[in-house]
Amino acid sequence: MCELLAMSANVPTDIRFSFSALSSRGGVTGKHTDGWGISFYEQNGCRTLHDPSPSAHSELAKFLKAYPIKSRLVIAHVRKANRGRIALENTHPFQRELWGRNWSFAHNGQLKGVKGLPLRFHTPIGTTDSEHAFCWLMDGLRARFAKRPSEAVLDRAIADAFAHLRTLGVFNALLGDGRSLYTSCSKRLCFIRRAAPFGRARLIDEDLEVDFAKETSPGDKVVIVATRPLTRDEVWTDVKPGTTLIFRDGDLARRFDPQHKAA
Amino acid sequence: MCELLAMSANVPTDIRFSFSALSSRGGVTGKHTDGWGISFYEQNGCRTLHDPSPSAHSELAKFLKAYPIKSRLVIAHVRKANRGRIALENTHPFQRELWGRNWSFAHNGQLKGVKGLPLRFHTPIGTTDSEHAFCWLMDGLRARFAKRPSEAVLDRAIADAFAHLRTLGVFNALLGDGRSLYTSCSKRLCFIRRAAPFGRARLIDEDLEVDFAKETSPGDKVVIVATRPLTRDEVWTDVKPGTTLIFRDGDLARRFDPQHKAA
Repeated sequence: MCELLAMSANVPTDIRFSFSALSSRGGVTGKHTDGWGISFYEQNGCRTLHDPSPSAHSELAKFLKAYPIKSRLVIAHVRKANRGRIALENTHPFQRELWGRNWSFAHNGQLKGVKGLPLRFHTPIGTTDSEHAFCWLMDGLRARFAKRPSEAVLDRAIADAFAHLRTLGVFNALLGDGRSLYTSCSKRLCFIRRAAPFGRARLIDEDLEVDFAKETSPGDKVVIVATRPLTRDEVWTDVKPGTTLIFRDGDLARRFDPQHKAA
Repeated sequence: MCELLAMSANVPTDIRFSFSALSSRGGVTGKHTDGWGISFYEQNGCRTLHDPSPSAHSELAKFLKAYPIKSRLVIAHVRKANRGRIALENTHPFQRELWGRNWSFAHNGQLKGVKGLPLRFHTPIGTTDSEHAFCWLMDGLRARFAKRPSEAVLDRAIADAFAHLRTLGVFNALLGDGRSLYTSCSKRLCFIRRAAPFGRARLIDEDLEVDFAKETSPGDKVVIVATRPLTRDEVWTDVKPGTTLIFRDGDLARRFDPQHKAA
């Protein structure tokens, strides 16, 4: 299984502490050795770094751990290939432009028959099920809405598409547009929200501790979403399978429970 | 004026020597201090690094100079902002997916009235004239060809679009899809082709010399395209304004002279 990591925050926040744990799982404490990638939003701009080499041994990952890139929305992925060969074009997060925004997508799981979903505007560059699902998702939004709809309409449209993809197999996924973080839990996903009063936390995968009180201001709000908890002395919330959670500015903005049915 | 750099090669080739010169022009030997970006193709995959900080002082540029990424097609840009504020989303190269390939685009010059060109499928994320021109170009290709046409047809379609954009102002530009490097010279662009027997070269902007004979194999072919020559002891060919040159695998594959008229 691949490992997912995402962040939504109300102020530009350094992701290095969490990324450090994730990248250890790419070859040291985990077996996710088939590449990794990370997208950082900076207002409307987005940086994406991909490396098909194991993150635990990647020069680019080492550079990232030393270089503070602050962002309010981050999506990252460490890959254990099951569909699609190990190659740069098969490395998540995938990106497409829609309505003048950069959309990033990362997924873990397998989707049966997803390549049978018809595509019109967006075409996969690589050969993964995941990128096909992403193209289908973007296609559906583009076909339905010529312009970006209201937040409420868009939230529901994405939750509906996520619900459909969950019927095809395992669809733990992260989707972001620089503003909202859309997450799907099909089997396993958890999150933690950090706000004042901030405490300390120690990583599970590395001997690294951080005192968030020293790194933050009292108004800061940060949500971290991950496949498995990254820290040992904090309480992470497991997401119930079948749920879509949507985060904005470090808050849980919208929840679609498993009983939610596509409109 | 911004500075452009591109490479087309028949084997994966290290761009660091040339990138070193380009990045010096971002704040040391040149005034192009408003960010830089570079796209490296690796088969169908593409890495793009962007930094809105001056390349001469960028940590990411320093990392790149030390880290050998080998590619057969590279597009790079150092920016002096004239339209669009200094921001990540306004930093070239821009990227869009078309026909299941990553397309990258970098431009120098100003285009009068380009934002009046209608767009349908692709929408700019930033506010530059350049990204609007790129979206128009991709839109035109997508509207005209549902699938990627033959190389000859595509070459001509792109040369026609370049010729139209040159009528709007200064359009020195680089466009790549991982396979072909399409270049437009409106005012200033030059190139050099290196093949056996390889010699030595010294950068103009830095005290750095390379002996290509030591770095290459006899069958290697490499074309470097740049706004201004990067080395002092080689003969660079100035491109005649109004010309579109198309490179593939380290060779000049196709030339459209200024008298070429859109079909």
